[in-house]
Amino acid sequence: MLTNASAAVGQRSLGDPSLLFPLDPPLLSGCPRTSGPEMQYPLEIDYDYGKVSAKLFAQPPLPGLQRWAPLLPPLAAHLSLGEGGTALVGSKRIADWIGLAKPIWLKDESRNPTWSHKDRLNYCIVSTAVATGAPGIAVASTGNHGASAAAYARRAGLRCVVISTVGAQPAFEHFQTRLGSDFLLVPPEERWPALCRIIESTGFMPASNLTRFHTGNPFGPEGYKTIAYELFAQLGNCVPGTVVVPTGYGELLFGIAKGFQEMVKLGVADRVPQVVSAEPGVRAPLAHAMARNVAAAEVSGPGSLAAGIACTVSSYRAAVALRTSNGRALTFGESTLGEAVAELAGEGLWQEYSGAAGLAALREARRRGEEVEEPVVAVLTSTGLKDIPATAIVSSSRVRRSLDDLIASLKHERGRQ
Amino acid sequence: MLTNASAAVGQRSLGDPSLLFPLDPPLLSGCPRTSGPEMQYPLEIDYDYGKVSAKLFAQPPLPGLQRWAPLLPPLAAHLSLGEGGTALVGSKRIADWIGLAKPIWLKDESRNPTWSHKDRLNYCIVSTAVATGAPGIAVASTGNHGASAAAYARRAGLRCVVISTVGAQPAFEHFQTRLGSDFLLVPPEERWPALCRIIESTGFMPASNLTRFHTGNPFGPEGYKTIAYELFAQLGNCVPGTVVVPTGYGELLFGIAKGFQEMVKLGVADRVPQVVSAEPGVRAPLAHAMARNVAAAEVSGPGSLAAGIACTVSSYRAAVALRTSNGRALTFGESTLGEAVAELAGEGLWQEYSGAAGLAALREARRRGEEVEEPVVAVLTSTGLKDIPATAIVSSSRVRRSLDDLIASLKHERGRQ
Repeated sequence: MLTNASAAVGQRSLGDPSLLFPLDPPLLSGCPRTSGPEMQYPLEIDYDYGKVSAKLFAQPPLPGLQRWAPLLPPLAAHLSLGEGGTALVGSKRIADWIGLAKPIWLKDESRNPTWSHKDRLNYCIVSTAVATGAPGIAVASTGNHGASAAAYARRAGLRCVVISTVGAQPAFEHFQTRLGSDFLLVPPEERWPALCRIIESTGFMPASNLTRFHTGNPFGPEGYKTIAYELFAQLGNCVPGTVVVPTGYGELLFGIAKGFQEMVKLGVADRVPQVVSAEPGVRAPLAHAMARNVAAAEVSGPGSLAAGIACTVSSYRAAVALRTSNGRALTFGESTLGEAVAELAGEGLWQEYSGAAGLAALREARRRGEEVEEPVVAVLTSTGLKDIPATAIVSSSRVRRSLDDLIASLKHERGRQ
Repeated sequence: MLTNASAAVGQRSLGDPSLLFPLDPPLLSGCPRTSGPEMQYPLEIDYDYGKVSAKLFAQPPLPGLQRWAPLLPPLAAHLSLGEGGTALVGSKRIADWIGLAKPIWLKDESRNPTWSHKDRLNYCIVSTAVATGAPGIAVASTGNHGASAAAYARRAGLRCVVISTVGAQPAFEHFQTRLGSDFLLVPPEERWPALCRIIESTGFMPASNLTRFHTGNPFGPEGYKTIAYELFAQLGNCVPGTVVVPTGYGELLFGIAKGFQEMVKLGVADRVPQVVSAEPGVRAPLAHAMARNVAAAEVSGPGSLAAGIACTVSSYRAAVALRTSNGRALTFGESTLGEAVAELAGEGLWQEYSGAAGLAALREARRRGEEVEEPVVAVLTSTGLKDIPATAIVSSSRVRRSLDDLIASLKHERGRQ
């Protein structure tokens, strides 16, 4: 019998790992002892690993993160929406396109309750909000994160304020309307001040970052560890050679790396994979930080098709993830990203642009002659259904073609075979 | 060790179950011996059940339908996109809204590769197309079915002609564009003639129906049996009291009923649940057929918000499903359907209208005082992301609200608590 209780013992500072704070209150603006104006350090949840049985990893990787409860923050089991347990799909064709010898494994996080990886994070955050008596959730997001936070808040019976910017994808606005969120559209520069005012006025728990360099909610990234646990089981109790991760602020990257490290700590796995970040080359603050060997970086640069991960600042958390997993920071160009989305569609998988980031980064790395340890897992983060701009909708419905033309072209093609 | 081989032995006529046809060629216009102008009878796949081990049902209900290979038509394992293995989410709140005593179980089929139940069907159809050498797939669909057929065709390297009608949801058009389908928009009345011309000219395998009363592709509904297999495992090797199914032509209904019946035949389960259809009341051909005790019915009536299941003809297959599972045909009104979608959103689950059909039908049945055997499973078929009309997108982006107003309202509400 596995225990359902969390083995979490506190919030540990990444700025000084000897500092352990209690689980309550959640520290939502980074480590209060080591952070300063120059750098803000995130916290992570630490556990009494001696209390965790390695048998936890003998279970099948089904949906419902509460099955990993010992290695997660205290969860409200009734809030689960059956997140996780996402499919792993092999592709030889995409491996060929990238330049890999073996099939690549695609971890499709669009199979989650709100069709993105963010559900793993928000189940943990909203559970923490409920456990600590927060009256609501507040999130600044134009996309997946806000949709997911709002969904778990509704499940918990909490109000959710979602601060978005004018020009966000219409699918997200429609989703928020359906969920009955307190949805607020503001100009981009007013987003963070608005979030702070909401939190100060209401005591709502932020599901978004409040510091210059990203520190975020310490409880959220823990949910991403379950991707590592699932991959290990899905690959027949093996660790892959490389895991490539679409990277914005690096919470997903950190969670996956930590999950593998925990399996080594518990004697379940014998090594961690190379954990690789994939950022849009137009900004790529983590790649800058790693190249200059600094804790985090702030950059400027134009936007990317991969809007969900085109950040201008990185986090200390992301650098830790790469440094402790023999990882590296990769980037990709916009045209390669477009090709990657098309390659996925060629396998029947439709991802938003951010979701194809790992494939684009790997292809460019292989073209430069870089070695990549196989087998490779690429994390795909969200559905293409969210990526439809209103303009495309209007224009595509005007495309017409005649039946006769189509039949003629199909016959012509068959005749040549 | 489980065998991976299919135990399928042939195509059996529902018009005369003593008639067994070989698996190849697929019979795509109903039973050729029993069908006539008055009624067309579907076929189903039959198996050598003596070759199937009950141990098949001891495995965890993970994604990838090939794990159920003995009870499915011959599958091309490399074409799987990790379909199935979808989450089962409990809800007390929705049970209360319906008027049930126990929590209701929501089987969320939006967690599939193209975010609908149709992936289970199309994996079987496209596998059959590959096995029988069809040069492509042809489908008449404005929605989920066409998206799914096109995705599996791409995975298989087959061309896919998708015939849709002007005015279909923009998300589907965009998906087809991304998948590189041969997408053809025609007026509604030209859809079926166009499909027939494509099939005659090219030899493409239809993934759509070709007869007046629906007969469809005999291989497809077999994929839906896996929902029954998964439910049994997810409920702790128990059969639910009732399974309610959004119903258009009844393929999903038939597959789920057959899956439970097979488990009884193999000694795995001791009974079948009540399998209940949920049709929009504005048309509801199956409910008409059942009330008049005929094999199938044709009706007219206005459209429904549940566009994907607002059919004007039923199938013999659907009536068989209800008659062999102590089932019944329920309908629902449009306003109840709107409430059901909102109730699901209240749990963080966003379904297209058709996906909430089962909840709406159950609520109306309970309001009439009808008994419903518990526990109840409602099958939710697809994501709300596909249900966004272009008009809603344009209008919702114009909604504005001030930060001050929002904060005032949140404070006011807290003050009253």
